Amino acid sequence: MTRPVIAVLNGANLNLLGERDPAAYGRATLADVESLCRRTADELGYDLDFRQTNHEGVLVEQLHEVRASAAGVVLNPAAHTHTSVAVRDAAAVVKGPVIEVHLSNIHRREPFRHHSFISEVADGVVAGCGPHGYALALRQVDHLVRTSERSDER
Amino acid sequence: MTRPVIAVLNGANLNLLGERDPAAYGRATLADVESLCRRTADELGYDLDFRQTNHEGVLVEQLHEVRASAAGVVLNPAAHTHTSVAVRDAAAVVKGPVIEVHLSNIHRREPFRHHSFISEVADGVVAGCGPHGYALALRQVDHLVRTSERSDER
Amino acid sequence: MTRPVIAVLNGANLNLLGERDPAAYGRATLADVESLCRRTADELGYDLDFRQTNHEGVLVEQLHEVRASAAGVVLNPAAHTHTSVAVRDAAAVVKGPVIEVHLSNIHRREPFRHHSFISEVADGVVAGCGPHGYALALRQVDHLVRTSERSDER
Amino acid sequence: MTRPVIAVLNGANLNLLGERDPAAYGRATLADVESLCRRTADELGYDLDFRQTNHEGVLVEQLHEVRASAAGVVLNPAAHTHTSVAVRDAAAVVKGPVIEVHLSNIHRREPFRHHSFISEVADGVVAGCGPHGYALALRQVDHLVRTSERSDER
Amino acid sequence: MTRPVIAVLNGANLNLLGERDPAAYGRATLADVESLCRRTADELGYDLDFRQTNHEGVLVEQLHEVRASAAGVVLNPAAHTHTSVAVRDAAAVVKGPVIEVHLSNIHRREPFRHHSFISEVADGVVAGCGPHGYALALRQVDHLVRTSERSDER
Amino acid sequence: MTRPVIAVLNGANLNLLGERDPAAYGRATLADVESLCRRTADELGYDLDFRQTNHEGVLVEQLHEVRASAAGVVLNPAAHTHTSVAVRDAAAVVKGPVIEVHLSNIHRREPFRHHSFISEVADGVVAGCGPHGYALALRQVDHLVRTSERSDER
Amino acid sequence: MTRPVIAVLNGANLNLLGERDPAAYGRATLADVESLCRRTADELGYDLDFRQTNHEGVLVEQLHEVRASAAGVVLNPAAHTHTSVAVRDAAAVVKGPVIEVHLSNIHRREPFRHHSFISEVADGVVAGCGPHGYALALRQVDHLVRTSERSDER
Amino acid sequence: MTRPVIAVLNGANLNLLGERDPAAYGRATLADVESLCRRTADELGYDLDFRQTNHEGVLVEQLHEVRASAAGVVLNPAAHTHTSVAVRDAAAVVKGPVIEVHLSNIHRREPFRHHSFISEVADGVVAGCGPHGYALALRQVDHLVRTSERSDER
Amino acid sequence: MTRPVIAVLNGANLNLLGERDPAAYGRATLADVESLCRRTADELGYDLDFRQTNHEGVLVEQLHEVRASAAGVVLNPAAHTHTSVAVRDAAAVVKGPVIEVHLSNIHRREPFRHHSFISEVADGVVAGCGPHGYALALRQVDHLVRTSERSDER
Amino acid sequence: MTRPVIAVLNGANLNLLGERDPAAYGRATLADVESLCRRTADELGYDLDFRQTNHEGVLVEQLHEVRASAAGVVLNPAAHTHTSVAVRDAAAVVKGPVIEVHLSNIHRREPFRHHSFISEVADGVVAGCGPHGYALALRQVDHLVRTSERSDER
Amino acid sequence: MTRPVIAVLNGANLNLLGERDPAAYGRATLADVESLCRRTADELGYDLDFRQTNHEGVLVEQLHEVRASAAGVVLNPAAHTHTSVAVRDAAAVVKGPVIEVHLSNIHRREPFRHHSFISEVADGVVAGCGPHGYALALRQVDHLVRTSERSDER
Amino acid sequence: MTRPVIAVLNGANLNLLGERDPAAYGRATLADVESLCRRTADELGYDLDFRQTNHEGVLVEQLHEVRASAAGVVLNPAAHTHTSVAVRDAAAVVKGPVIEVHLSNIHRREPFRHHSFISEVADGVVAGCGPHGYALALRQVDHLVRTSERSDER
Repeated sequence: MTRPVIAVLNGANLNLLGERDPAAYGRATLADVESLCRRTADELGYDLDFRQTNHEGVLVEQLHEVRASAAGVVLNPAAHTHTSVAVRDAAAVVKGPVIEVHLSNIHRREPFRHHSFISEVADGVVAGCGPHGYALALRQVDHLVRTSERSDER
Repeated sequence: MTRPVIAVLNGANLNLLGERDPAAYGRATLADVESLCRRTADELGYDLDFRQTNHEGVLVEQLHEVRASAAGVVLNPAAHTHTSVAVRDAAAVVKGPVIEVHLSNIHRREPFRHHSFISEVADGVVAGCGPHGYALALRQVDHLVRTSERSDER
Repeated sequence: MTRPVIAVLNGANLNLLGERDPAAYGRATLADVESLCRRTADELGYDLDFRQTNHEGVLVEQLHEVRASAAGVVLNPAAHTHTSVAVRDAAAVVKGPVIEVHLSNIHRREPFRHHSFISEVADGVVAGCGPHGYALALRQVDHLVRTSERSDER
Repeated sequence: MTRPVIAVLNGANLNLLGERDPAAYGRATLADVESLCRRTADELGYDLDFRQTNHEGVLVEQLHEVRASAAGVVLNPAAHTHTSVAVRDAAAVVKGPVIEVHLSNIHRREPFRHHSFISEVADGVVAGCGPHGYALALRQVDHLVRTSERSDER
Repeated sequence: MTRPVIAVLNGANLNLLGERDPAAYGRATLADVESLCRRTADELGYDLDFRQTNHEGVLVEQLHEVRASAAGVVLNPAAHTHTSVAVRDAAAVVKGPVIEVHLSNIHRREPFRHHSFISEVADGVVAGCGPHGYALALRQVDHLVRTSERSDER
Repeated sequence: MTRPVIAVLNGANLNLLGERDPAAYGRATLADVESLCRRTADELGYDLDFRQTNHEGVLVEQLHEVRASAAGVVLNPAAHTHTSVAVRDAAAVVKGPVIEVHLSNIHRREPFRHHSFISEVADGVVAGCGPHGYALALRQVDHLVRTSERSDER
Repeated sequence: MTRPVIAVLNGANLNLLGERDPAAYGRATLADVESLCRRTADELGYDLDFRQTNHEGVLVEQLHEVRASAAGVVLNPAAHTHTSVAVRDAAAVVKGPVIEVHLSNIHRREPFRHHSFISEVADGVVAGCGPHGYALALRQVDHLVRTSERSDER
Repeated sequence: MTRPVIAVLNGANLNLLGERDPAAYGRATLADVESLCRRTADELGYDLDFRQTNHEGVLVEQLHEVRASAAGVVLNPAAHTHTSVAVRDAAAVVKGPVIEVHLSNIHRREPFRHHSFISEVADGVVAGCGPHGYALALRQVDHLVRTSERSDER
Repeated sequence: MTRPVIAVLNGANLNLLGERDPAAYGRATLADVESLCRRTADELGYDLDFRQTNHEGVLVEQLHEVRASAAGVVLNPAAHTHTSVAVRDAAAVVKGPVIEVHLSNIHRREPFRHHSFISEVADGVVAGCGPHGYALALRQVDHLVRTSERSDER
Repeated sequence: MTRPVIAVLNGANLNLLGERDPAAYGRATLADVESLCRRTADELGYDLDFRQTNHEGVLVEQLHEVRASAAGVVLNPAAHTHTSVAVRDAAAVVKGPVIEVHLSNIHRREPFRHHSFISEVADGVVAGCGPHGYALALRQVDHLVRTSERSDER
Repeated sequence: MTRPVIAVLNGANLNLLGERDPAAYGRATLADVESLCRRTADELGYDLDFRQTNHEGVLVEQLHEVRASAAGVVLNPAAHTHTSVAVRDAAAVVKGPVIEVHLSNIHRREPFRHHSFISEVADGVVAGCGPHGYALALRQVDHLVRTSERSDER
Repeated sequence: MTRPVIAVLNGANLNLLGERDPAAYGRATLADVESLCRRTADELGYDLDFRQTNHEGVLVEQLHEVRASAAGVVLNPAAHTHTSVAVRDAAAVVKGPVIEVHLSNIHRREPFRHHSFISEVADGVVAGCGPHGYALALRQVDHLVRTSERSDER
């Protein structure tokens, strides 16, 4: 019997996690993040669809692909958080809940990282919680799926 | 044997939760939120110190009180998120991790709610996850306490 | 037989009325304003609940207290007009009409006094009419109570 | 024996009152407003000079005309509130008190309606009180005429 | 048998078309534009009501006049595009579709010409297409009239 | 005998037309838009080169490809309208006329959609006319091709 | 033998000169200004066409009227200086030199009076020189007419 | 014989002095500051009224209390420097001189600390001089009291 | 018998007049301007003190030097118009009238040339009248000297 | 024996060099630039890795690829200079020196080209030196490699 | 035996102290200020190096001169406070403490006087304390010299 | 036989190079920079005119002096980069190429250092390349002199 799927989509430069700016992002690699997500999803009863891309257009199309099939989406848009209306518009068509994740606390960094085009269409935002923030986001997707608490006004 | 304590501090108007603007905040009351927090803290092995105040000065002094004794703080500064340098300065002296929580997604609301004085001194931020966001924040406090992953540059 | 009550709530520094900056505020004292309000309310058939506080948190809780019991509220938030999201959020939960009053014409004074967080949730605004503005505000509360003309979109 | 006159001057598009955007302005027509004003003025002992124009230049000249003869002016500059320095300069030469009126609460509407060129030269402002706001404004004119309480610093 | 009417309303300085700044506006005169409009309207089955005024107040009243009788309006507010809330408010009461036209591409000119008060209430906007833009606007009015495709949220 | 070609280039998320936000974009699909364009082009005597991509870089290269061969370009840059200097620079090298199209009236939507990097290099702009706006844009390309009315200062 | 004509055009509220705000404008009336202009024009060898209007549209049409016939224009746009693109566009079509005059030094007054839409199309600007500024402006028109020193880049 | 009193009023979080952010504030405690003030006041011939509060409303009322009785006030409004109109309005009613003190140089810190609502009503400002700044402020109060040099335009 | 003196002070780069950017400044040299000034001053009955400097500090000291002895000052602060508070403060201490002159119309040039620190302390401003503007400024100085019309509020 | 490699990475639209806007970019083609770079690199003792892409995501990945292997990078991000946080973040992980190059002087062009996201992470910037700027940048990379003068604080 | 030296450096227009704008600056002359400084320095055990200049470049070089030899610097940059990066950069190289002084409370004056380029590199700031502020600043220099309390992070 | 001359002009505080803020500027002295420039100029076949001044007015006059005689100018305006219109205007009259140099990468420093008044009139800009940047600038001057590649639109 198939389990529902949560998609975890990662944006530009996250393939370098653990190598790039450890003071801001810590030493865990993207593979570490994926393992953590896989364990958490499994524990919550979901299959995981974990991807990373450096291309805005690919991220847009991944959102299109999963928009109807995934139970929910955990989205770390990375650099495109601050510059992409295209990712925002694609995230807005996802049917299940979308939880935005940032490894670092973007509000403590450069001012251009304080604004997110995505937050205004996301159901929830988790920032500054490191890799563990992905686990929190998965729990929130699960919570919304199970309780239909997700707000209707989106 | 005493267990460590996590303080959950709630700001102005949250005593009216469930009554005020249900479209934005849902129908759960603050007592419901406290129950959820108590269950989660218990499960994670902590005692809970749950408070609410409508007075900025009281919130400042609650942060002073718990700054050394609490294992960590979950802080929902409510209206003072956007206007209080005093709460920010008090949150900055807390020794354990501070996770900021907002029931609603403040980025989808009026522009004056988009900026937080607190986020720049918090370890992490959880927004738009409803009452369940408190549970996520407690898990993140616990995670940081257990792994000392909390960033040092604060 | 009890009459309905209108609450008249006054914010910071208004206890000094008549002494502080007479060029802007005139020479009437807060007791004079209260007498005027009492006469007007009586003439219109209401009891009066007249209060003043210098504490934002107390003003928030006064609004909570009267939110369901008062027929309407006349609110002079004084200095907190320009800085308090907490008072705004509290004013927004009042069930009856809320009329915001300013003794002086705030638009003729320093730029930081031109913006009001409260006006966006008030039913009406009366500014620059001196103590007599309280009487006008009471009349408007009465008018809204009697005619249910108060706009529904609040 | 002649009675003193209060001029009530109405600006652009107010001839469509009751038809245009009833959610914001209500269903009363300008004739209804005129009747209400006439009753109130009569009760207070004034003759009424009630006009409406869609032309900024005409509004300027109406203010010129009544500047010395009227006991006071109730001015609803409508759309020109936000764009006309000419109306502001004309309002500033009126000898009696000038009370600015807005049917809707302009602070709850589009940002470009939040600023008034007129408020900075008006004696008082009444907003968001619907047609009844005209009655309040007439009372304030009368109050100022009778008590000479009008601030001198204009 | 009478045909439905489309009103084409032209604002300030357009009487000088062909003479004023040919680099920006081309060499066609307003009479040329009128001929083009008349041919297009005729071909589409409409009578044409073509006017020009240099007076904002007159433009407001022309919009009032045609608001119920015209099948639709093609509006070139010229200089008042950028400064007139009165024209905006008048355009908002027109019952049929309103298509805003600009001869030049206003986005290539001075910054103060980039913002239009009218676009936010128009059904569609055509800019930078020269006199032919009027023909396009007439076609769009006709299209909306015939298909009732006009968006309902206005 | 070959006919001249007009390229119609569509940007990010337009493949979801009809599914995404019907209140803003209507229920027509991109296939419907293509049919409409094909009929209109055929009627005007052109072949049609109709494409859609979610990738900014692909859109840039499509503009490069058609820059010399196409008689003109109808360009709906979608989300990249507001964020892409690369598309702007590519549009600026197109030799024939470029008409920018937006299905919705971008001036009625979020503020970040009010500015277009493309308009400053386009020959004309059509917004808020729905799918029919593509037909208008094709007519304008044809008009410019036939009359060489296209402004020289680009 | 006819002499060339200089038009002196005066905008809104200038009919009240001498009565309105003497601290800013002095005690001379518009008739005094006209006499001064007439004497100066006569001395320089010109006939004078001196007008005042409170209507923006009339000012636009006065500029149209004199655009070809007048040797030059002295323009005091008064309140419309700061708000009228229509007057600016009309001033830009005048063939002879246009000198903008302000009685008061607009840079010492409220911030909204510091910006002039007209200065960017005027040949020269004279501000803060009182009624005598009109005489200086007439001399500058004469100087430009006689020496063709007027800058060509307008 | 009683000596005149200087009030030294300290705002939010200053009770933590010496513990909070020693890089910015140094290691002296508030008790150390009080001792220094007491020695200085004594040397200058004054009694000292030294207080601290974390409550804006209490600070307002302390200013009310001492407004007539104190020879002068040394005020460190701490976090409320940047956010409180209420403290500003209360400081403005103090009859003797008010010297604002900041331990750290607020101009070297975050931008939101660069603006002070209080400076505009204070007689003098001392910033970045550490605890010794309190001694300087006391000397300045004494200097003003003895020489009546205090500027009259407040 | 000595005649009164008018000082004409010229700022940075004006020694290159006639050579620098003739499109903006014309072909007259500073010697030509001096001749024109000398003729005009002579005709009006004044001696001329004509100077040029590229040093802000020298310009400040020239203003100091002439502040009491000169009947008036014609000041072209050139580049320092837009950047120098020191020249502004020095100009403010001049006892006689100060007329600010600009050869070019600074409002038609780069935005940073639109603001003048000097205009707010000058008695009058003449811009865009070329070298002849100096003659106009001298006439205005003479006019003010003879009629004491110079505004008192400086 | 292998020589160290310098990567020269070129962004969007640079494949059209020589054809696009020769006034701004000159007539040299990208092949000409490559030849110049190859000669310079050869002379300095390096192999050259010269690439161009119109895709932001590809540019990000090219930076990833060369981040450890290249002795240094010369980066012309073209249009993405002004809009891409992703390219900035990728450039920040390059181990060797990064010199940013722009053919044109971006400070003389449209305001949106004045800000570079890349400059804040680049070691040096060369702008407005045409194709020769690439040679200068290569020299600077070589200089930094040979002298380890590159600043450590990056 | 030589005593250490404190340099007191005064900027533009301060040579006119006592004459210029007494409402803002009082009636003391610079000689009075120097006497006061000399008495205070003597009492504290320092020699005084007191200078004034109207030239920014001279002020820069005075700072260079004293940067190593002076025990500390009291700096009143006057008009250059608000405009000079050169003075700021020179002040930043002074080895001893630098205390910035302003006679008037710059926060009560024009907005352009609220920002200081110098405060961000000064050790302390004293404003609005009149000539006595120099004495306070000298005491603070002495205090820092004796206690080495000066913050290290400069 | 005389060789052509390149002038290298250095602004305020650069005489302290090597001493001031070595983290930003490195340890090389201005004499080191001069030696490097002399070697490079000699190698390229030029004489060198190397100067430094702390006075804006002197820098202006140095530019005047060399404007016709120098083959080109390398200009490091230091602090005046960000504040001086006078230097900008002087640089604009230099006949040969002007290359602006900054030792540090001004885009990584304080925001007020990001804008340059000079870049908009310079032919090229080299920043963040340390002393070696002077050598690059000299090469670019030579390149422009030899190839006349310098852009004509200046």
